[in-house]
Amino acid sequence: MTADSLCLDEALAWLALLRAPGLGASAIRALVARHGSARSVVAQARREPSIPSAARDAVCSPDREAEVADRRWLDQPGHHLIPFACDDYPALLRDIPSAPAALFVAGDPTHLWSAQIAIVGSRNATASGLANARAFARAFAQSGNVVTSGLAEGIDGAAHAAALDAGGTTIAVLGTGTDVIYPRQHADLAARIRISGALVSEFPPGTIGKPEHFPRRNRIIAGLSLGTLVIEAGLKSGSLITARLAAEQGREVFALPGSIHSPLARGCHKLIRDGAMLIETADEVLGQLRGIGERLADHLRGRLGDRAAGSGQPGPARETAKRDPEYVLLLDALDRTPASLDELAQRSRLPVASLSSMLLVLELDGVVSAASGGRYVLA
Amino acid sequence: MTADSLCLDEALAWLALLRAPGLGASAIRALVARHGSARSVVAQARREPSIPSAARDAVCSPDREAEVADRRWLDQPGHHLIPFACDDYPALLRDIPSAPAALFVAGDPTHLWSAQIAIVGSRNATASGLANARAFARAFAQSGNVVTSGLAEGIDGAAHAAALDAGGTTIAVLGTGTDVIYPRQHADLAARIRISGALVSEFPPGTIGKPEHFPRRNRIIAGLSLGTLVIEAGLKSGSLITARLAAEQGREVFALPGSIHSPLARGCHKLIRDGAMLIETADEVLGQLRGIGERLADHLRGRLGDRAAGSGQPGPARETAKRDPEYVLLLDALDRTPASLDELAQRSRLPVASLSSMLLVLELDGVVSAASGGRYVLA
Repeated sequence: MTADSLCLDEALAWLALLRAPGLGASAIRALVARHGSARSVVAQARREPSIPSAARDAVCSPDREAEVADRRWLDQPGHHLIPFACDDYPALLRDIPSAPAALFVAGDPTHLWSAQIAIVGSRNATASGLANARAFARAFAQSGNVVTSGLAEGIDGAAHAAALDAGGTTIAVLGTGTDVIYPRQHADLAARIRISGALVSEFPPGTIGKPEHFPRRNRIIAGLSLGTLVIEAGLKSGSLITARLAAEQGREVFALPGSIHSPLARGCHKLIRDGAMLIETADEVLGQLRGIGERLADHLRGRLGDRAAGSGQPGPARETAKRDPEYVLLLDALDRTPASLDELAQRSRLPVASLSSMLLVLELDGVVSAASGGRYVLA
Repeated sequence: MTADSLCLDEALAWLALLRAPGLGASAIRALVARHGSARSVVAQARREPSIPSAARDAVCSPDREAEVADRRWLDQPGHHLIPFACDDYPALLRDIPSAPAALFVAGDPTHLWSAQIAIVGSRNATASGLANARAFARAFAQSGNVVTSGLAEGIDGAAHAAALDAGGTTIAVLGTGTDVIYPRQHADLAARIRISGALVSEFPPGTIGKPEHFPRRNRIIAGLSLGTLVIEAGLKSGSLITARLAAEQGREVFALPGSIHSPLARGCHKLIRDGAMLIETADEVLGQLRGIGERLADHLRGRLGDRAAGSGQPGPARETAKRDPEYVLLLDALDRTPASLDELAQRSRLPVASLSSMLLVLELDGVVSAASGGRYVLA
């Protein structure tokens, strides 16, 4: 199943589950896996003992007003609901223990499958911190990586804006519905991101930001990304949560050092003492992620292999390509001129959902490079 | 044998060996150990096949002019020659693989037995680096530690001066003879150090500074100290040599982080990546060194036990004190009012050389604290 093939009834059933009070992501994932679809869960909710009673009542008597709003959100162009069960659900995020049950995406959901580097940091950043955020975001974008962050003031906003200014792609993960932009002064930035990247949230449309949403949002930033770079963070900064989650998820954590007299260097220094890599240049991050990318590619290849028609055996991408007719089709479709996912789908006659995962494997293996605008070329 | 009991003939014999071309520290140490004294080595130099011929000629036909200069240096008050074979030779320095064959000291040699922390860094330090050097040196001195450095411009000079200004003690290790002050603008600073601390060198009087002397000097700075703190260093800074030697000698290396845009933070960042402890405050260094001090105390206690009349068994200082009559005498002599080494020698009737090593063990065990002016109190 891909996000595009999700019918309206199934999408609305997912939304009913996602909006049900007290029904967590892991419970929803387990229910849908057991019943085969969200519609089946909703249909059998009355007889499903694992659903708490308040959630059962909500699922069986949905809020019609919310349903109207959800239909309106789903109807808008560029809006996508990507449930965990869907092939378009990003592979790296799927790997984390607390993966969201579904993602709401406003923008191009294929970017979720590109190699992402998270840049996070203080809302009250210094001028020097903001300049560093811009410089690293620009370098990551120019090397074909997507810059992922949290749309917050300070470091987050600077990183998003610089990635866009460099002609790159950026993903903002929100602690609100994708239609509720917080902070308000980032409305224009969010509009640009929706066009050239994606706004992503696990919260249904209309959800306003609550303090507890933002630490939860951070696990998605870390989970989508190959690594997380922290630029300026106080000792109580939420960025330290993102970094801790990234480390727990087996992703690399990078931190910029600073003056011992700067309170906003303290968090970064703590991370470095705890094992984060001390970073001076963007190239150091990119160099380190190449190695991680290879390990993740092996892992993904194994998982995709289990799911796909190809051999389930992990192995270098070129080897996979020789054996797997789908990879042969994709490599034939690629050339030295950047091509979009849609162009590659036309040329190879492969579904976009398969393409995006195959391209990530090839990209992590260094066979394919991501170019600006979500396009791909042979490396 | 202590430095004070070294007779002039033996001192001059040591000087003849130290001045002999091509005779390294380890060769001299081995020769003196085999022959029992420097005088015996000189007397039998003609028949000693392990001495290279140029060195043999120099030892057998000493430079009379140099000998006059050496006698003049030895005659001056506060000047001490401390050969490796002497009990006054500092225990921590004795432990390093390339320990100097002898030390020339201008000042109070008992400071060499105090707990020392090295502060080193760039000659071209920034204003902020100099302020950091001063602040850390002040804190170390005020907590009863001796600040050891290399008398160079920049960080070294700032650390020495701040330790003295705080009423503390500082040791300058030179790449020249103790009578040849380099850089010249530190002549006044060197004069203050000689009064309130010690100038130390492995190079005989009159030796002028050569480029190769300074990296050699760095091993003594690191070897005398429990740990080495690097404050601002470029990637080619000699401070990185000091830090590497400290690490190789099993001592702790500390480094201050800085802006990623500061070339003088690069060396510190390299050290942190290589395992040095990232430091924000002086208390972090002091806390870390307490643990190291305890380990070194165990080690020293074992070594001193082998040499001294007491049981050779390592064990906590209070246990040692119960068993060892010399430690009982010393603990009886100590009280809550700081007392100098001479006062403690008078009260306990123990020789100063034994006292200094016993006090270091007690200090590293936390039984005794070093007070300003080389005095000691019960902790």
